[in-house]
Amino acid sequence: MLQNRRTDLALEAQELWQESAGEQTQLKGVQARDSQREGYAVTTVRILDQEGAQALGKPAGTYVTLTVDGLARREEDAFGRAVRAVAAELTQLLAGLEGPVLVACLGNRAVTPDAVGPKVHDHLLITRHLVDQAPEHFGAFRPVASVAAGVLGTTGVESGELVGALTGRLKPVCIIAVDALASRSLDRLCRTIQLADTGIAPGSGVGNHRHALDRESLGVPVIAIGVPTVVDGATLAADLLGTADLPPLGREGEMLVTPKDIDSQVNDLAKVIGYGITLALQPGLTLEDMELLMS
Amino acid sequence: MLQNRRTDLALEAQELWQESAGEQTQLKGVQARDSQREGYAVTTVRILDQEGAQALGKPAGTYVTLTVDGLARREEDAFGRAVRAVAAELTQLLAGLEGPVLVACLGNRAVTPDAVGPKVHDHLLITRHLVDQAPEHFGAFRPVASVAAGVLGTTGVESGELVGALTGRLKPVCIIAVDALASRSLDRLCRTIQLADTGIAPGSGVGNHRHALDRESLGVPVIAIGVPTVVDGATLAADLLGTADLPPLGREGEMLVTPKDIDSQVNDLAKVIGYGITLALQPGLTLEDMELLMS
Amino acid sequence: MLQNRRTDLALEAQELWQESAGEQTQLKGVQARDSQREGYAVTTVRILDQEGAQALGKPAGTYVTLTVDGLARREEDAFGRAVRAVAAELTQLLAGLEGPVLVACLGNRAVTPDAVGPKVHDHLLITRHLVDQAPEHFGAFRPVASVAAGVLGTTGVESGELVGALTGRLKPVCIIAVDALASRSLDRLCRTIQLADTGIAPGSGVGNHRHALDRESLGVPVIAIGVPTVVDGATLAADLLGTADLPPLGREGEMLVTPKDIDSQVNDLAKVIGYGITLALQPGLTLEDMELLMS
Amino acid sequence: MLQNRRTDLALEAQELWQESAGEQTQLKGVQARDSQREGYAVTTVRILDQEGAQALGKPAGTYVTLTVDGLARREEDAFGRAVRAVAAELTQLLAGLEGPVLVACLGNRAVTPDAVGPKVHDHLLITRHLVDQAPEHFGAFRPVASVAAGVLGTTGVESGELVGALTGRLKPVCIIAVDALASRSLDRLCRTIQLADTGIAPGSGVGNHRHALDRESLGVPVIAIGVPTVVDGATLAADLLGTADLPPLGREGEMLVTPKDIDSQVNDLAKVIGYGITLALQPGLTLEDMELLMS
Repeated sequence: MLQNRRTDLALEAQELWQESAGEQTQLKGVQARDSQREGYAVTTVRILDQEGAQALGKPAGTYVTLTVDGLARREEDAFGRAVRAVAAELTQLLAGLEGPVLVACLGNRAVTPDAVGPKVHDHLLITRHLVDQAPEHFGAFRPVASVAAGVLGTTGVESGELVGALTGRLKPVCIIAVDALASRSLDRLCRTIQLADTGIAPGSGVGNHRHALDRESLGVPVIAIGVPTVVDGATLAADLLGTADLPPLGREGEMLVTPKDIDSQVNDLAKVIGYGITLALQPGLTLEDMELLMS
Repeated sequence: MLQNRRTDLALEAQELWQESAGEQTQLKGVQARDSQREGYAVTTVRILDQEGAQALGKPAGTYVTLTVDGLARREEDAFGRAVRAVAAELTQLLAGLEGPVLVACLGNRAVTPDAVGPKVHDHLLITRHLVDQAPEHFGAFRPVASVAAGVLGTTGVESGELVGALTGRLKPVCIIAVDALASRSLDRLCRTIQLADTGIAPGSGVGNHRHALDRESLGVPVIAIGVPTVVDGATLAADLLGTADLPPLGREGEMLVTPKDIDSQVNDLAKVIGYGITLALQPGLTLEDMELLMS
Repeated sequence: MLQNRRTDLALEAQELWQESAGEQTQLKGVQARDSQREGYAVTTVRILDQEGAQALGKPAGTYVTLTVDGLARREEDAFGRAVRAVAAELTQLLAGLEGPVLVACLGNRAVTPDAVGPKVHDHLLITRHLVDQAPEHFGAFRPVASVAAGVLGTTGVESGELVGALTGRLKPVCIIAVDALASRSLDRLCRTIQLADTGIAPGSGVGNHRHALDRESLGVPVIAIGVPTVVDGATLAADLLGTADLPPLGREGEMLVTPKDIDSQVNDLAKVIGYGITLALQPGLTLEDMELLMS
Repeated sequence: MLQNRRTDLALEAQELWQESAGEQTQLKGVQARDSQREGYAVTTVRILDQEGAQALGKPAGTYVTLTVDGLARREEDAFGRAVRAVAAELTQLLAGLEGPVLVACLGNRAVTPDAVGPKVHDHLLITRHLVDQAPEHFGAFRPVASVAAGVLGTTGVESGELVGALTGRLKPVCIIAVDALASRSLDRLCRTIQLADTGIAPGSGVGNHRHALDRESLGVPVIAIGVPTVVDGATLAADLLGTADLPPLGREGEMLVTPKDIDSQVNDLAKVIGYGITLALQPGLTLEDMELLMS
């Protein structure tokens, strides 16, 4: 049934499992825990083993879901709190990984719901060349490089190939891969940030990657940061109609449901994520520093 | 019931009426006729009187719907045929109107499904200043000016106010207003071009105009050219569920359903419409001329 | 001789006059005064009468030149001080003018050195529609509308015609017209902001306007804000060679000299000016308010 | 003296040598030949040995300069002839190299005179993934991949590192590297295309590459295609003043001289080069095919 209910969120995969299994059943191999970070709700789903992985259709690992719902309403300090929350959760996933980082920004800048990655690329503090060229000034910074991988149709190169080639050359201790995701629920669109230590699986993301970007394929840990920006039309229709049959909403992946103001929401979230990554990698900076350094 | 079934297409308004009224009933005050133009299907709906207007929720006038379905598949000469078809239908609606024309390109360039108007603006041959400054070279051209009206939130000015002010200054014999539309059917998204001699009604378009752009408000005939790029999420859910109740898909206008490749489809259609308008206004030109003059 | 030494800055016109007249001569009808604002140098040139106007080739009025030279080096609070300095000088020029304002953003977004106006448009707080639609929330704001006039070649409409038409419709108490300028000196490029209460003369600006935008043509006071982004190649060559003869650097206006990093400099200055205008028009706001309201 | 007279064109380096050496002297180790291609002037400079290389300050190899001067005036078939001329010259330089090609598009899309590379990227027919995924349809095409390398400041990665990493992964038989150049003469700006079989030297290009992209660094032949879009201000001043002293025009590389309409000229040239490369690599295509396949 899952194949008609597309979601890239571990949280939703778990909900789907629970719905089909019934309230009473306990899913083995999966732990979920709710908490708070900077006033935002956090749910951490841990897929512990192969049984859990198979049940949820996701690789084993830790999936952190952050709900940043005040952002669009421009609430007091919503931006600063969201940046700090992303940084704090990312810092936990980065524990023990010291050294240079490569941020892989996936997706298509020309397609708004797929532009999260390229737009995050615009909000990162890039330091690798500065540390290298002027260590006397920038020696205290962690070396960070970034690539906006572009689109297969305009490059002829898979994201995974490009990131793999650069990983071989730059020798980062880990990859942070940023991408747009599909969720099942309209309520989560552009309000949810998922961080996971599992990398990116084939067929996931709005752009439907053909190859994995994970520790196995790249040789270093891959932390994935994603934002759901679309609900697949066919998934939504199946949900609405309560049926697993193919609904009259086009083939899977053909029609997308997005919020009306997706452009400004993607811009806001990309800035939160870019600043959050930067704060996690350069913990001494303030928001004002980042504003100044990146403008 | 119509209020939960949002469509800007007269063709769909008629279908909705027929569905709710039953197959046998004949809608008075409305005529529909199918034909062909350059190999594409054309349906012409004529709303003849107030009775028809009330039944369909659209002002009286002529609505031509062109289905340009080979375009996305890049079929043989699909582009050229579509340009000529738009030009031919527009020429009929322009019959008897000689003299300067103002093309009003409505919508928000930053929001892909609302960017049809601004992108058409990029594909028009603008001649007003040339005819004025160098009549010895350009005297044979019809004077054409164009304005991309921008968005209320970034200008503080309604499209209708701006177009009205310019109409008073430029004294065109008619306005051609281009806009993105909402349809009811996913099948019509980015495959349908509607031309109408009625102008644009308040609340229509993807951007939901607050004021009419029509003969009454502007003092000259207004021909509207629109492309459906979104289905309203609430409308779609109501259709799927076969109910008039508010479905669980957010409030009307909050969630939009679009094709996955909307960016390239909007680009293609904007070029077809821009070239089609240009060919209707400067009938002597060839496709090659336009390519050369506009690049 | 002036015709080979193109400058839109009154300050430079005065220097040129002084050079050709000799140090001892006193220019009648022109007063100049140096001061400081927020740590930046300010020179105020007042052209008092027709004699002064003819000598400098500029209409009579007040020209304030602000040198914002710390901006590019991202000095401490350089941005905030520049915003406050622009706001303070603009407030003086706006003295006695209460009521709605129209900001006319001139120039071509696609040509970097001419994009100052369109980019300022992106950094303005637009309030006219809010005051109008929700006076209970926004009644304390001054109504501000803005238009990015576009380019004659793509609209067929002169900036002056468009702004004139909108002025007739919106009835502002004054126009603030923003544009890119040509200077004579490379040192002033992207480091100087000129504010003047004289409007914009024909032939000035990077885009070389064909019509005036001033009180006479528009019926309301026009305050011009400009930034020099180019030195005309022919002007520069004449200066280098110390000759009034036509130098081997192409015809006037054909070749432009710009700083290498003009893109980022134009972005910085446009934000300073947009925020400065907004602060002058809505004096209660803080930088943080503006950041939040405009993002 | 050459160090104050910056040029990336071998043709100009030869002219400079001749100027300083006197008309009568014969430069050893360098051959130059004038010819015609599709109605455009072609000059081929061959640097034969180390003596010639040292005299001209360029690596030994073949430099073809194509003068495409009808393009801006939109002369009859100027575009088609320019595409065919680029393709013909490139085909000669590619002689004997069969197999996959990587096109490396260098430069900064945000800085107009440096945007030639990124804009060529938009006009290439990319086939590597098609040949790979659907050999039954695309097996007759030569595999072409492309990367727009981005800017060191926003990636932390040198162009040479990125292209090197991809070359290791994709194993092309050669690289075609596209870049914006500096010339000495204003007359050559945006009217000249240089093709060379020598790759790109450190310090060349508008962006001043820090590392070579050549056969030695990348392990495969590198054909460079460049267009001069700027004259360095200091170089120009030294030429005007006939002096080798540092002129009052800022430090080398600080001020750039560009044509006023550089945006449209860069767009035109990028399309010529992109189509020219595509035609050289897929010789069976027509202009119409390319228009259709790339839109």
